[in-house]
Amino acid sequence: MQTKPAFTDKDLDEVYSFAVQLGKDAGKLLLEAAQLRYSPTRQSVKEQLVEKENAVDIVTKTDEDVEAFIKSSIAAKYPSHKFVGEETYSKGSTRSYLIDDSLPTWCVDPLDGTVNYTHLFPMFCVSIAFILKGVPLIGVIYAPFLNQLFTSCRGRGAWLNETQALPLVRNPIPPMPGNAPGGCIFSCEWGKDRKDIPDGNLYRKVESFLNMAAESGGRAGKGGMVHGVRSLGSATLDLAYTAMGAFDIWWEGGCWEWDVAAGIALLQEAGGLVTTANPPGEPTTADIEEVKLGSRLYLAIRPAGPSENESGRAGQERTVREVWKRVRELDYQRPGA
Amino acid sequence: MQTKPAFTDKDLDEVYSFAVQLGKDAGKLLLEAAQLRYSPTRQSVKEQLVEKENAVDIVTKTDEDVEAFIKSSIAAKYPSHKFVGEETYSKGSTRSYLIDDSLPTWCVDPLDGTVNYTHLFPMFCVSIAFILKGVPLIGVIYAPFLNQLFTSCRGRGAWLNETQALPLVRNPIPPMPGNAPGGCIFSCEWGKDRKDIPDGNLYRKVESFLNMAAESGGRAGKGGMVHGVRSLGSATLDLAYTAMGAFDIWWEGGCWEWDVAAGIALLQEAGGLVTTANPPGEPTTADIEEVKLGSRLYLAIRPAGPSENESGRAGQERTVREVWKRVRELDYQRPGA
Repeated sequence: MQTKPAFTDKDLDEVYSFAVQLGKDAGKLLLEAAQLRYSPTRQSVKEQLVEKENAVDIVTKTDEDVEAFIKSSIAAKYPSHKFVGEETYSKGSTRSYLIDDSLPTWCVDPLDGTVNYTHLFPMFCVSIAFILKGVPLIGVIYAPFLNQLFTSCRGRGAWLNETQALPLVRNPIPPMPGNAPGGCIFSCEWGKDRKDIPDGNLYRKVESFLNMAAESGGRAGKGGMVHGVRSLGSATLDLAYTAMGAFDIWWEGGCWEWDVAAGIALLQEAGGLVTTANPPGEPTTADIEEVKLGSRLYLAIRPAGPSENESGRAGQERTVREVWKRVRELDYQRPGA
Repeated sequence: MQTKPAFTDKDLDEVYSFAVQLGKDAGKLLLEAAQLRYSPTRQSVKEQLVEKENAVDIVTKTDEDVEAFIKSSIAAKYPSHKFVGEETYSKGSTRSYLIDDSLPTWCVDPLDGTVNYTHLFPMFCVSIAFILKGVPLIGVIYAPFLNQLFTSCRGRGAWLNETQALPLVRNPIPPMPGNAPGGCIFSCEWGKDRKDIPDGNLYRKVESFLNMAAESGGRAGKGGMVHGVRSLGSATLDLAYTAMGAFDIWWEGGCWEWDVAAGIALLQEAGGLVTTANPPGEPTTADIEEVKLGSRLYLAIRPAGPSENESGRAGQERTVREVWKRVRELDYQRPGA
């Protein structure tokens, strides 16, 4: 039986360069399509046509066009690689987890932060991950309206705009606060699941947010008194800002692997920790397992350095447990899982 | 009795130019101070000294330094003008409202989004308003990490980076959605008041957020099913993004005039509406009064164009009433008011 040649370091470097350029090109397409809606010199026939469509139609079309561009670029360069994109799913009949160990795989969201894009709020981006044997090794995230490009490759570091290593503050990298989640910026999202069902996901999320926000000692001891609560409307950028060290904690349920694959690659390369959002039965002692990419349940902690009393990893794990004590279990199913 | 010479259009132009340059210079100081914490070439003695302080000390010092820079620059150029800044209050014994009709007044927050700045999350800015006879006429907001400069002067338009008129989408400016707050991005903040008091501000805010977010018809008819809920941690930038048209609705209680004066000037010049956050007894029929700058209670609606059925202003007012029906009254006192 013929064995495939192993994926070498040189191969990975080449894929990384290709992915970064692809992210830049795709982000440029996103920005150009956005600018069609407000450019002061909208004279072309194409632009006049666009004007007749509504914002949501434009966004859907842009989403599809940019995914098609990314998919065909990858197919031309790496015809043997597998492609998993948001639009792949939207049009398919299944939401089963399609990433396995068999082939090098690209997991892509052409436009993360779709609602933001519709409203021209700058927090939108393209998100491209390269996955080998089920592990995201490369992450490329480009938010063109913000001029922020986040890139990482396993062993090559994580970067903002290709020059600034992540996390930003790194000589030394600050430890997690001793009273975490106190002192932390907590990032979370309201999401699309807004059903008014008693103890449904909406209520479980809000109860969790409230526990994290309330004064220390409040909420029957669950008050976390976080330094701030932030909601950007982009899971990808939430992870990127966690990798940057700007957010300390990101907790979310309901998004999909294309929303998080590149962000997880970036965060892990920067030194962050990602595990499950749902608290185990014994949050103080349970194992802190590696995140499952397709689990739809994510808890991310920023890169952390050691303090006098504990290692960086120990500080991150302590923070995970303190979050788990304060949040509710969310109910997001995975078809076929 | 000698009367003061009237403030001419030419005077206002001159003040505007001065304010824009002042905002750029102050924002540069903010960014430079931030970069001291992560620059890859931190070699100077000054930088080593900074390293010994903690992040909060650095931020407090930056806040004070930048306010002192702005205050002295204004005093040198316009010695007869009054200055009201955040630091003026922090060190004073009163939080009474100090803006009146007597003198041209500058209302300044040297650093809005302090928590973001501490964590190096890019959503921080300097905020400078020029107020004549109690009315904010000029607004300058500069977020240097985002490279976003927002400027406005009464009668001269509202601008992003001095070239792009606000709101961004303007040919035509979209009407408010017919089912608002459905279809809207709702911007709100958790703020610092996290006391675990039954029916305290924290609970009233969260109940309001939940009503705005929940599915239409949910929450006993109060469900607003907004398109998205966003929290940035900067009242000034919330208002700037509302002026841009990126946020449709901003609702907040507890901030102060220096947090909102420049943003209100910007939003009003762009065509937005600002009134009180607290719903009147009869939300469907009550007068929609002009915002009181020192009221600590703000509800802002983005610029809106006409639809087939109503004027832009009517759409904004309809949206105000729909928000009022869904939010709770907040309890923020004004000393001496």
